[in-house]
Amino acid sequence: MKTVKVIEINENVFSKNDEEADKIRRNLNENGTFFINVMSSPGSGKTTTLSTLINMIKDRYEIGEMDVDIESTIDAQRVADATGVRSLQIHNGGLCHIDADMTARAIEEFGVEGLDLLILENIGNLVCPAEFDTGAHKNVMLLSIPEGDDKPLKYPLMFSMCDVILINKIDTIEYFDFDMDKARDRILKLNPNALIIPISGKTGEGMDTLVQWIDSEISKIKSN
Amino acid sequence: MKTVKVIEINENVFSKNDEEADKIRRNLNENGTFFINVMSSPGSGKTTTLSTLINMIKDRYEIGEMDVDIESTIDAQRVADATGVRSLQIHNGGLCHIDADMTARAIEEFGVEGLDLLILENIGNLVCPAEFDTGAHKNVMLLSIPEGDDKPLKYPLMFSMCDVILINKIDTIEYFDFDMDKARDRILKLNPNALIIPISGKTGEGMDTLVQWIDSEISKIKSN
Repeated sequence: MKTVKVIEINENVFSKNDEEADKIRRNLNENGTFFINVMSSPGSGKTTTLSTLINMIKDRYEIGEMDVDIESTIDAQRVADATGVRSLQIHNGGLCHIDADMTARAIEEFGVEGLDLLILENIGNLVCPAEFDTGAHKNVMLLSIPEGDDKPLKYPLMFSMCDVILINKIDTIEYFDFDMDKARDRILKLNPNALIIPISGKTGEGMDTLVQWIDSEISKIKSN
Repeated sequence: MKTVKVIEINENVFSKNDEEADKIRRNLNENGTFFINVMSSPGSGKTTTLSTLINMIKDRYEIGEMDVDIESTIDAQRVADATGVRSLQIHNGGLCHIDADMTARAIEEFGVEGLDLLILENIGNLVCPAEFDTGAHKNVMLLSIPEGDDKPLKYPLMFSMCDVILINKIDTIEYFDFDMDKARDRILKLNPNALIIPISGKTGEGMDTLVQWIDSEISKIKSN
């Protein structure tokens, strides 16, 4: 095995926005609204999976969806068309993330009165969004089978800070070299408390477990 | 069709590093080294494709590979093991991109004397790396079939600024809803001069066209 040289090039450009994020959570707690932030690489299936999820639970809950993108309105439109729930497209001016201040402005514009569940579909990116607390109660990410089981090793912060990790596109697992046990081990090493759920947002496989988790979290918010 | 509301939230955090990038290109021109910057989402197949490419041409060219990652050395090690070429892992301190200054420091550390081809495997991200000129002569990106044909609409800057766009994992196209004509049309609308090459980095399909392009570009650099 050849030895690879490593050089470290550091820079710190991130600022803290924890206070603003806590304020968002306090306001949503008072309102009885459970807020999740959903992250992944581009093309991991966030929009398809969220549409499937919303259709499974929309008869029982009032749901709102906010979608972050650089300039298109494709995803918010897709969710609105597929589910009929109220949807807002947030354009973030070409940035790679959304922070708590931007989220607060979007929530104010959107209006969350009466909502049981607020979903933020973050921009497709495994690096930047992990750095910014958006004010969500829980962070959810998708890792799709075609991306490979090595991603936890390469984007450790994202896998460390998510409460739920959905392994998506399991309907395609036979066509890719994806070792589910390795993926699980790598995730749990970074994040021993992660809830890992293999799913197919397209076929609905495994989605019941995600719904159970959502039910349980909404009931916690309502009973506080 | 429900109408989706749109709000614009802007911020400008990017600074220009064009001068440093031009300096890198001038130095590499004098050295007769062709430099490509390779970008994509996480899991699009950069490392596999570059290993296949390098093995196809390493008998004819001196090649060096630099790999940007947050903290692992997986990719540089994979390329080194698969091809035997000299490889450097660049750790960028958790950032979502690499700029020209960082690239210049990495090139100085790596040493490019005698190299015909220098390859930068950028961090897996469709947003940030597109903002920074790294000093490469040409930018190459991969869009993999499982990610979907809508990605040019959602990450337009990346698709606009790349010279070559490899549509990777075409060996899996029958398992996904990917419309190659739509993908092509969307890319060419943003970037009429893009060279679009469908490939499988895993099976080698389509890679001859990429090799022809590399040959032609190296010969341009050498004849200047």
